[in-house]
Amino acid sequence: MYAVKYELIKTCKQTGARLGKLHTPHGVIDTPIFMPVGTQATVKSMTPEELKEIGSQIILSNTYHLYLRPGHELIKKAGGLHEFMHWDRPILTDSGGFQVFSLGPLRKITEEGVEFRSHHDGSKHFLSPEKAMEIQNSLGSDIMMAFDECAPYPADRKYVKDSLERTTRWLERCKEAHKNTEKQALFGIVQGGMYRDLREQSAKEITNIDLPGYAIGGLSVGEPKEMMYEVLDYTVPLLPEDKPRYLMGVGSPDDLIEGVLRGIDMFDCVLPTRIARNGTAMTSQGKIVVRNASYAEDFTKLDPECDCYTCQNYTKAYIRHLVKTNEILGARLITNHNLRFLLKLMKDVRQAIMDDRLMDFRNEFFEKYYGKK
Amino acid sequence: MYAVKYELIKTCKQTGARLGKLHTPHGVIDTPIFMPVGTQATVKSMTPEELKEIGSQIILSNTYHLYLRPGHELIKKAGGLHEFMHWDRPILTDSGGFQVFSLGPLRKITEEGVEFRSHHDGSKHFLSPEKAMEIQNSLGSDIMMAFDECAPYPADRKYVKDSLERTTRWLERCKEAHKNTEKQALFGIVQGGMYRDLREQSAKEITNIDLPGYAIGGLSVGEPKEMMYEVLDYTVPLLPEDKPRYLMGVGSPDDLIEGVLRGIDMFDCVLPTRIARNGTAMTSQGKIVVRNASYAEDFTKLDPECDCYTCQNYTKAYIRHLVKTNEILGARLITNHNLRFLLKLMKDVRQAIMDDRLMDFRNEFFEKYYGKK
Repeated sequence: MYAVKYELIKTCKQTGARLGKLHTPHGVIDTPIFMPVGTQATVKSMTPEELKEIGSQIILSNTYHLYLRPGHELIKKAGGLHEFMHWDRPILTDSGGFQVFSLGPLRKITEEGVEFRSHHDGSKHFLSPEKAMEIQNSLGSDIMMAFDECAPYPADRKYVKDSLERTTRWLERCKEAHKNTEKQALFGIVQGGMYRDLREQSAKEITNIDLPGYAIGGLSVGEPKEMMYEVLDYTVPLLPEDKPRYLMGVGSPDDLIEGVLRGIDMFDCVLPTRIARNGTAMTSQGKIVVRNASYAEDFTKLDPECDCYTCQNYTKAYIRHLVKTNEILGARLITNHNLRFLLKLMKDVRQAIMDDRLMDFRNEFFEKYYGKK
Repeated sequence: MYAVKYELIKTCKQTGARLGKLHTPHGVIDTPIFMPVGTQATVKSMTPEELKEIGSQIILSNTYHLYLRPGHELIKKAGGLHEFMHWDRPILTDSGGFQVFSLGPLRKITEEGVEFRSHHDGSKHFLSPEKAMEIQNSLGSDIMMAFDECAPYPADRKYVKDSLERTTRWLERCKEAHKNTEKQALFGIVQGGMYRDLREQSAKEITNIDLPGYAIGGLSVGEPKEMMYEVLDYTVPLLPEDKPRYLMGVGSPDDLIEGVLRGIDMFDCVLPTRIARNGTAMTSQGKIVVRNASYAEDFTKLDPECDCYTCQNYTKAYIRHLVKTNEILGARLITNHNLRFLLKLMKDVRQAIMDDRLMDFRNEFFEKYYGKK
C-alpha cells in the first residue's frame, strides 16, 4: 500500500478533465488542486489558520531551502515539518533538484549527483537521489518528489536525452533509498524537454517504475505557452489513469485551466504570493497593480466578487497606501487575496467538471480575466 | 460636554495608583492602558482583528506620517482614519510635533509654527497649531494631541522655558482651531524638561486651559530613568484628578509600572513592535533575543506563561528560523506576542490596583523580569 491514493470521481463530458480525491496521511484533498508554496516552512506572510480559512488543502515546501536553513536534522528533531511549522494538512516537498540546477555555475552534475555551493554562504554541498530522499524522509512530507534534472529551455536534443535517462536512473535510486513508504509517497517526474519522442521515452521509463503518483517537470521554464500545452497534449495521455498527475511550477490562471483541461490534477506556483508582495492582485476582472496612482482614491475593494478577508474589509486606496509605505500588512492582505483567488478558481473548476461544462467555464473566465477567448 | 470623559473607579490603597475608565466616541477603555502604535495607519504586521484578539482597546497613530502619506485629505475622503484602516475602537493621534522637531536641520521653529522638509522627498511643509488641528480633525481620531514642542535632553533652562511658554500659547491656538469638540477630544501637553519649577509653570499654564485630558511630554527622551520618575513624582500631582493623564512615548515594562504607581493612566510606545521585528521578545522571564543561536533547537514556546496565538502554536526554534530567514511571519508572531505581553501586563496592573496590592505586584514582576527589586 502506498501512502497516498488517487480516487477518480468523474471526468468532464465536455472536456475529459478529471475530478478526483487524493487520500493522504494528513487528510483527503480535492483535485484538481492548487498548492500554495511555503518555501522556507512558511507560506510567505500567512499563518496556517489563514491558509485554511481561504481553502488551502495542501501546501508545497522546498527541500533545498530547508536543507540549508534550518537544516533537515533540526526539523526532524522538531517532529517533522508539519509539527515544526504548525500545519496539520498534507505537505508536498520538492527534491531540491530544481533549485540546485538553477544555481548555474555554482553547481556540477555527475552521475552520482550534484555538487553545489550554498547561495547564502558559498559552502559546498552534495545532493543525490539518496540524499534528497534522506532529507525528505526527515521532513516527513506526505508527498516526496524524486530527485530529477529539470533541463533548461532551450536545450539541444542530446542534452535532454542524456538528462532524462539519468533522471530515470536517479528515480530507481530514489525508490530504493526511500525509507518511509507507508507514510510518505514518492512521485516520479517525467522530463524530455519540448521533444515529443523524448517525452514519450521518459513517460514510458518513469511510469514503468511503480509509484503512487507522477509529475510532469521541465515545463513553464521559458517556453511559449502554446508549446507547453502541446507537450501536455501528448504527454498526459501516457500517464496512468489511476494515479495523480502533477504539473510542476505552474500557476497562472490560464495555465491552471489549460492544464486541467488536459488532465492535470495538481499544480504549484510562487506567482500569487510573489506578485502580491510587489503590489499586484489577481481579480475576477484581471490583474491590477494596486500601487498604481490610479487607485490612490479608489475606495472599492480589490475584487467585487471575492469573499476573502481582504475584500470584506479593505479598500484599494488603503492597500495601496500600505504597499507604498512598505507595510507588512500590505503584503499580507494581497497575498491572502491572491491565494484565495486561485483556490476559489480551482474550486470553480472542480464544480465545472462536476457539471460537465469546463470548456464553457474556461471561455467565460478567459473573456473576463484576459478579455479574450 | 467633551468627547471623552474620565471615570475614576478607585485608587490603590497600597500605592495611590488609579483605576478608571475612559469613555470615548468609539467605546470605553480601561485605564491604566497601553496603546499600541500604528504609525502609518497600521500597527506594523497586525490586523485590527488580531489587535482585538490580544486585548487592544485603543491605538495611536501619527499625524506627521499620515499627513505626508497618504495625506489627511485622502483619509477624510475615506471617511476618516477608523474607516480607512478598518479599526472601530478608539484612536489617539499625536500632533506631528514630536516628529518634525526630531527632523533636526530639516526644520525651523518660529512663533507661527514649524517649517520642515519631508524625510521622504525633501518637499517643504509647514505645521502649526491650526494645521495640526485641521489634520487631526480630518483624521477623526477620538483623542487629538496639542501641537507642542518636545524639548530635547539635555537642554538649557532658558531654551526649555521659552519652549514651554510657546507650547502654552500654541495650546490656546489649538483649542481655538479645533473644529469638532463633540466627537474629538483635545489633550494639552505639559512640558518643562527636567526642571521642577518649569514643570510647575507648564502644568499650571496648561491645566488653566480647560480640556478633557492632559499629557506629560518631554520624557523618555534620553534622560536617566530615575530622573523621569522624579519629574513624574512632582508633576503628576499638579494635574486634575478628574481628567486622564497620558505619559507620552513610554512603554518599557518597568516604566509602565513606575508610571502607573505615580498616577499615569495612558501610555504608548513603539518598543514592543520595533524590537519584535528585530527578533526580540518580551517574556515573563525577561527579554529574549530569539535570533540567538542558543534557541536554534529550543522547542519550547516563547513564554510559558503567555496565552497568545504565538505561544499556543509555535516554538522558539521555528520563530528563530523565521527571523533568520527574514520571513514576514516571524515579525508577525513576535509582534503579536510582545503586544499581548504588555497588554496583559496592564491588565494585571489594573487587577493589582483593584486588589490594593500594586506595590507587591511591582516587586514580584521586577524580580521575575529584571531579576531585581
